[in-house]
Amino acid sequence: MKMSNMLISTLREVPAEAEIDSHKLMLRAGMMRKMAAGVYNYMPLGLKVLKKVEDIVREEMNAAGAQEFLASAMIPAELWQESGRWDAYGAEMFRVKDRGDRDFCLGPTHEEVFTDIARNEIKSYKQLPLNLYQIQTKYRDERRPRFGVMRSREFVMKDAYSFDKDQEGLDIAYDKMHDAYVNIFNKCGLDAKCVAADSGAIGGSNSAEFMVKSEVGEDDVVFCTECDYAANIEKAYSAPEKEEKQDFKELRKIETPNIKTIEDLVNFFKTTEKRFAKTIIFNADGKIVAVMVRGDREINEVKISNAIGEVMNLELASAEEVKKATGADIGFAGPIGIKVDILLVDEEVANMYNFIVGANETGYHIENVNYGRDFEGIVGDYRNVTEGEKCPHCGGKVTIARGTEVGHIFKLGTKYSEAMNANFIDEDGKEKPFIMGCYGIGVTRTVASIIEQHHDENGIVWPLSVAPYHISVIPVNVKDEEQVKVANKLYEELIGMGVEALLDDRNERVGVKFKDSELMGIPMRVTVGKKIVDGEVEFKLRTHEMEVVKISDVCDIVKNEFHKNNLKLR
Amino acid sequence: MKMSNMLISTLREVPAEAEIDSHKLMLRAGMMRKMAAGVYNYMPLGLKVLKKVEDIVREEMNAAGAQEFLASAMIPAELWQESGRWDAYGAEMFRVKDRGDRDFCLGPTHEEVFTDIARNEIKSYKQLPLNLYQIQTKYRDERRPRFGVMRSREFVMKDAYSFDKDQEGLDIAYDKMHDAYVNIFNKCGLDAKCVAADSGAIGGSNSAEFMVKSEVGEDDVVFCTECDYAANIEKAYSAPEKEEKQDFKELRKIETPNIKTIEDLVNFFKTTEKRFAKTIIFNADGKIVAVMVRGDREINEVKISNAIGEVMNLELASAEEVKKATGADIGFAGPIGIKVDILLVDEEVANMYNFIVGANETGYHIENVNYGRDFEGIVGDYRNVTEGEKCPHCGGKVTIARGTEVGHIFKLGTKYSEAMNANFIDEDGKEKPFIMGCYGIGVTRTVASIIEQHHDENGIVWPLSVAPYHISVIPVNVKDEEQVKVANKLYEELIGMGVEALLDDRNERVGVKFKDSELMGIPMRVTVGKKIVDGEVEFKLRTHEMEVVKISDVCDIVKNEFHKNNLKLR
Repeated sequence: MKMSNMLISTLREVPAEAEIDSHKLMLRAGMMRKMAAGVYNYMPLGLKVLKKVEDIVREEMNAAGAQEFLASAMIPAELWQESGRWDAYGAEMFRVKDRGDRDFCLGPTHEEVFTDIARNEIKSYKQLPLNLYQIQTKYRDERRPRFGVMRSREFVMKDAYSFDKDQEGLDIAYDKMHDAYVNIFNKCGLDAKCVAADSGAIGGSNSAEFMVKSEVGEDDVVFCTECDYAANIEKAYSAPEKEEKQDFKELRKIETPNIKTIEDLVNFFKTTEKRFAKTIIFNADGKIVAVMVRGDREINEVKISNAIGEVMNLELASAEEVKKATGADIGFAGPIGIKVDILLVDEEVANMYNFIVGANETGYHIENVNYGRDFEGIVGDYRNVTEGEKCPHCGGKVTIARGTEVGHIFKLGTKYSEAMNANFIDEDGKEKPFIMGCYGIGVTRTVASIIEQHHDENGIVWPLSVAPYHISVIPVNVKDEEQVKVANKLYEELIGMGVEALLDDRNERVGVKFKDSELMGIPMRVTVGKKIVDGEVEFKLRTHEMEVVKISDVCDIVKNEFHKNNLKLR
Repeated sequence: MKMSNMLISTLREVPAEAEIDSHKLMLRAGMMRKMAAGVYNYMPLGLKVLKKVEDIVREEMNAAGAQEFLASAMIPAELWQESGRWDAYGAEMFRVKDRGDRDFCLGPTHEEVFTDIARNEIKSYKQLPLNLYQIQTKYRDERRPRFGVMRSREFVMKDAYSFDKDQEGLDIAYDKMHDAYVNIFNKCGLDAKCVAADSGAIGGSNSAEFMVKSEVGEDDVVFCTECDYAANIEKAYSAPEKEEKQDFKELRKIETPNIKTIEDLVNFFKTTEKRFAKTIIFNADGKIVAVMVRGDREINEVKISNAIGEVMNLELASAEEVKKATGADIGFAGPIGIKVDILLVDEEVANMYNFIVGANETGYHIENVNYGRDFEGIVGDYRNVTEGEKCPHCGGKVTIARGTEVGHIFKLGTKYSEAMNANFIDEDGKEKPFIMGCYGIGVTRTVASIIEQHHDENGIVWPLSVAPYHISVIPVNVKDEEQVKVANKLYEELIGMGVEALLDDRNERVGVKFKDSELMGIPMRVTVGKKIVDGEVEFKLRTHEMEVVKISDVCDIVKNEFHKNNLKLR
């Protein structure tokens, strides 16, 4: 492309609307422009990168045996009503009525649609396994769209859905997608770590996220500092602390007037948070649930929801509900004599001795409480992991970092096929629901994440595989006929080799051209200046020093860069 | 692709929902499935064709110097309010509110967005000319979606917008797009004729449509049977009939009781329709407009709108409005003494002598009326062309055929740039509005139109350029090891050459395989059967007889087919 013909929209100033580097650079390099909050227009430079990432995704999905499909973005409400998600999805779903007053949504995801396709098109186990994917614009009305395309409302997603006749088939499909995702992010030059994720009520090791470390990430990810263990905080587990065994002491009710917080209690009892077990009461879809964790721990609501079953709404109980369950004001709940539907006891609490709890009586606590003797409940892991705890795999210390999810693989099982009556006839002649998996990649978010990992003070540093153009050819002085001639010839040669080259034939100072090339992140640069009299030009990799090279060597140097990056020239 | 791994959704039955061949075949071949009225899911086979057409469009647009862009489908209402089209677009626009109650539409077209981009990004004449295009999903809530993707509500469109500093620039941009469109439709194997179209209030020869002849087309197109003249009926012109000059006779008022229609009048006066001039009264955005055409002619409402200026609503006047304008009941309107804001007189009426009109008095007509002596108005072309009239260019006879619009090129001028204050600084330092053009191709409709022109009783007959797969390799008996070996080897060789081959390795009767291959429209077929003992297989082009060929010749025969179709193998 000749830059004199190109819409170049580089900005020298940092736009006020952008908070993070990728957002700033996508605006400054002229990759995109904001249309509305969380809604962007892709300019030619941004679209080229987006298409390259899409092509990498497509190549690996096809190699994994998946077939490309394209569903409509408009989805009739009826399908979502069948799965029960029309009401459940809430304000995040964009809804639209047609002229006949029929309800549609703009697909935020497509499980229902693909389940519907499968039940219509797949009759027999002979047609299985099958994996259908699409690269499509999705719509989610985020409460707080921000960080450019990292969290936007109209975005490009790759979503795939696998259909199998049994669990073994699903396991294979899931592993194939895992491997495809590893390849995709590698080819994009993105360091994305596969971490165990919560998979909702389905449970088990059925879901993993591909996370990119990022200070502005929406998720906390727990990493072991010594082994490979990594998990989303929602799912992460740590080895529980266990107290040394002690003899059970006698229960003692103690007046604790005007005490409301754990801090008050610590001061009152002159001890540490670890001596207390706090009892928090929730309303889970109408059920009253008490959860006990050690005084210094945080409750993990995702784990609570999973322990109870599928919970749509998990909320702290009202003062009234607390009063009904405990007979006391808030701040004095405890396990002894509490009237709740479910009592969940964190495994650490079950391993404590002679600890302090609320007395279910306003102004009182009880000490020397012991699990088993004084109360019982459902023991499990209900707490958040914290920095420095022990890794459940190797016992090493864990650390917590913020991360952004760029991919998610998920064993759905029969959740949708059962709800939507999507069955096939198995080898034994019986009708069975499809065993499904779903697999997403945030394509636009991947583009932004690549920039987050690949930039410097001068701009973007594209990996060659996704660069919008591979090389800039820059004549220093466009009024110098010889320079223009050499630059044009090099440009034509590179184009002829299948290299995507830019010729900066604008009548601008060379400094402006360098700045634009660096800001746009073009991986290679050839500067055609006065040295042509000696048959030489300047060659520069984006993050390396400039070298003087022979004009006749440029094409080989470029070829070699493709070779080093495992990329083919056509 | 091995067909045993493929989602094959061919249907033997003709689906009841489909009325036209392309719709039936797209369903029967398993290219797409209906999600809702006018909303379709593209299955793998259909998507492959769609992508091939998109790539042809992309290639030609790039070759014409246009740059690919991707705007959001969600567009804030504010932009449409600026252009005045938010209210004007009516029920055809899908509208959606976000969680903050802000209004968006799902873009039915993107003039506003691209005008907005230009005013933000283009400051100087030095950045012009510029042509930006996108291939994008568009949304129009058609009153009557039908014929599959021919008239659907969610569809893929290529839309391009050119920006120039002057009219000469626009003329060049428009001609480039015309030529690109000719290439695109040629490469798609589609016989699309460029016909003059109405361009609304802008007038002149500023708009052309690429039409495909089709019995189910939405437009009537006038073609000259002798020269190249072709135009949409909305725009088409014919040489007006002129009467031989006569002396003006004296006006005579005649009682015509109980007469309402032209037919009644013809019987009453014992003459032909051509002796009458009918006067029809409209309400055009509140203005009362009378239009006169010869008794046997139809009024062309598009021409009326253009003659008046930009009309949002053109409706027949109410009985009350007619009474006010004429003082009479409906059926007795005439030009003499009529009280209207505008009187439009078709040029044929202005060339008639001593004709009959309504008397503006219930129960009376007037004869021997003559233009100039008895009344005056704005003379012009306000009638529809009819079959057999004279071509305005060569005088030959014209014929009328139904057509479907697959492309439209349009000189917008400053319509949007002025409304939206989109200006650049010209060479003379003055601020001027962009001179714009817009250029659309219905990509999904193009796919359906190709099928309309290329099918037979057995299924689709894809041109090689857009075929989802180029060739089927069919072993007759998948239990015969030798046949399978030869078929596999041929398949691998073809794939290695860059040919998109299908290997029909399903355990099905060969007749089923032939039927599927023909229905899906695969251009070439190799059948691997018993003749392999003699080193032979059967080769068949989709619409030709089968030939026995040497196995060793197959690759050359295939290469030759690519060569004959001007297609490159990679």
